[in-house]
Amino acid sequence: MERSLVEPFYVMRVLEKAKEIEKEGKEVIHLEIGEPDLPVPKRVKEKAKEFLSRFEQKYTESAGIYPLREEIARYYCETYQVEVEPENVVITPGSSPGLLAVLKVVSERIGQISYSDPGYPCYKNMLNLLFSEGRAVPVSPESSFKVLPQQVETPALIVNSPSNPTGVVYTLEELKALSEKAFLVSDEIYHGLTYFERAPSVLEVTDRCVVVNGFSKFFLMTGWRLGWLILPDELVSDVTAILQNTVISPSTLSQYSALACFEKEVLEELRSNVEVFKERREVLLKGLKEVGFKVPSEPQGAFYVYADVSDFTEDSFSFAFELLEKVGVAVTPGRDFGYNRTNEFIRFSFCTSVENIEKALERLYSYLR
Amino acid sequence: MERSLVEPFYVMRVLEKAKEIEKEGKEVIHLEIGEPDLPVPKRVKEKAKEFLSRFEQKYTESAGIYPLREEIARYYCETYQVEVEPENVVITPGSSPGLLAVLKVVSERIGQISYSDPGYPCYKNMLNLLFSEGRAVPVSPESSFKVLPQQVETPALIVNSPSNPTGVVYTLEELKALSEKAFLVSDEIYHGLTYFERAPSVLEVTDRCVVVNGFSKFFLMTGWRLGWLILPDELVSDVTAILQNTVISPSTLSQYSALACFEKEVLEELRSNVEVFKERREVLLKGLKEVGFKVPSEPQGAFYVYADVSDFTEDSFSFAFELLEKVGVAVTPGRDFGYNRTNEFIRFSFCTSVENIEKALERLYSYLR
Ligand SMILES: Cc1ncc(COP(=O)(O)O)c(C=O)c1O
Ligand SMILES: Cc1ncc(COP(=O)(O)O)c(C=O)c1O
Repeated sequence: MERSLVEPFYVMRVLEKAKEIEKEGKEVIHLEIGEPDLPVPKRVKEKAKEFLSRFEQKYTESAGIYPLREEIARYYCETYQVEVEPENVVITPGSSPGLLAVLKVVSERIGQISYSDPGYPCYKNMLNLLFSEGRAVPVSPESSFKVLPQQVETPALIVNSPSNPTGVVYTLEELKALSEKAFLVSDEIYHGLTYFERAPSVLEVTDRCVVVNGFSKFFLMTGWRLGWLILPDELVSDVTAILQNTVISPSTLSQYSALACFEKEVLEELRSNVEVFKERREVLLKGLKEVGFKVPSEPQGAFYVYADVSDFTEDSFSFAFELLEKVGVAVTPGRDFGYNRTNEFIRFSFCTSVENIEKALERLYSYLR
Repeated sequence: MERSLVEPFYVMRVLEKAKEIEKEGKEVIHLEIGEPDLPVPKRVKEKAKEFLSRFEQKYTESAGIYPLREEIARYYCETYQVEVEPENVVITPGSSPGLLAVLKVVSERIGQISYSDPGYPCYKNMLNLLFSEGRAVPVSPESSFKVLPQQVETPALIVNSPSNPTGVVYTLEELKALSEKAFLVSDEIYHGLTYFERAPSVLEVTDRCVVVNGFSKFFLMTGWRLGWLILPDELVSDVTAILQNTVISPSTLSQYSALACFEKEVLEELRSNVEVFKERREVLLKGLKEVGFKVPSEPQGAFYVYADVSDFTEDSFSFAFELLEKVGVAVTPGRDFGYNRTNEFIRFSFCTSVENIEKALERLYSYLR
């Protein structure tokens, strides 16, 4: 058979290998996973149980239940001081299928779409699926891995701030400058997880944009599969029609349960988690430098450190396997994020306890120093 | 703005109008909805509550949790006496995103895909989304709305048995003959809901096929968003990679809860529901004929009657609105299912009580006779 239709996630091979090693009874520390380990607030689970007893979980409207669209609209007013109408909010089963629908509509209605390299691999893969040729914009440590306005040569651009894998946060001015060059598809899924300055939403600088967001990071609800889009009026019906055909509607129980996320106490609990990630971030950054890795751009948000390992290897992909096999530390090879010097980098996530992070660092230190 | 990127479901306009009428305080009887009204077995909900307490709902593997893949493989052995390995079962968030991934891979790897007209509208819409030009095969009452082998001129064909909107069930011989002409994508989502003969699976006649199925019809779990695929070895990794990118993984809670569906008592409960649908089917068929509608092909499965209304109108789309406005009966216009004489037909679903069906029939009778 010919080569695969979409590029696989290379980290899956790391995961497979990790499982083999674990089967042999050895402990692997997982710093490859991009999924928060903290528990979903109790209140959300209680609501879920209540709704399971109270009514049948039927299809909802494709755009999602209106009360949740209202809560999200209100959340944007409070968080970013921008006006969002519930009619412009569309609920999706995780942000991923929403992003796919948006990339389809934007590439048809607006034009070619650029995305940063390194960047979240699904952007490129989804565009390939849709036969929509995207354009990779190489970003480098020298510009803190940010896309610069002069690099934008297409009618549309995906921005991801805070970004995966680099944790970079774009300022209001930077977003504004980009929005003057292109229609922005802004993946804001790591919003709420910032360690210094807040991450501004692209909605604060322009209406010519789509926001992609969801419940999988700050809200911790990965396996619940829930996300949302904020769309300009003229794209709502196209995007909703695509979702109607491709997913019908998001999980009913997840939608109702997520209403609890916007209660004051729940939001406070979620906000307090940021301190937990912040401590892990510091421990990990300090330790990685002691090991001898360079971190040219320290993460301002999200839960990843994108580390330059070129002092140790010319091939970070095999290096990732070396670390896994020699010291039982699983990481994501740069290759998953594109082609632009990604052989020099690996991504460490801090979705595990300080204790685990310290143990991983000790193992790396004794192996590499 | 130009015309919409994908054709909308016309029934959504019926639904909107129905809501307006209901807001005025008038009662609408819903015979347009393709969603079973019966409650999900208690045991499934109990399991859901238990799992909510027992563990965090994280992402699962993209192909789904192994125990559910095993249960489904076992279910095929028991139900169809065919051997299915868990490795060939891939769990999806509803059958819809699974179908999208399959249509992508089949159109790339195997070739152009045909589908019946009238037929389930998402087939055409999904192929359009993927820029994969499908081919509509006109099917007529004279052949019980079945695709005939001599009509198949493409390397691949979607079969939907029992079918939406006609309720036709293909025999083993018919499936065999079709499988000799094309690679089959078999949408078996209405399996389990048959009123005379069982519906054979395409797996009983060939390995050159994909089965698309899910928990939304026989298993009643629409809003839980869960489905599955059965794939030949050589398509598993492509399809899984696409799902990884487009949906990440199906709802974790839905996956674990669905394990309960395969318990003996639960399956018995589900099987006994068929009698409920069967009674409704008889009441509806008899009543529609009394009103003067023709039903050239009576449904052998699924929960729809596809009725010829050409004695009353030349435009079943406006006729649907007329029925809604004059007597408060909501139905789906044929137009939703394609172009082939669909202006002469409307679809009645029997996803509501006998009482409601009788009331709707009385209203239709007094208006139209
Ligand atoms: C940048 C980015 N966008 C989108 C997603 C998709 O997440 P979900 O589909 O769970 O909302 C992820 C998940 O890792 C991500 O890192
Ligand atoms: C023929 C057919 N296939 C597939 C589906 C998709 O259902 P789901 O995505 O809920 O599994 C439907 C739903 O109405 C259908 O009628």
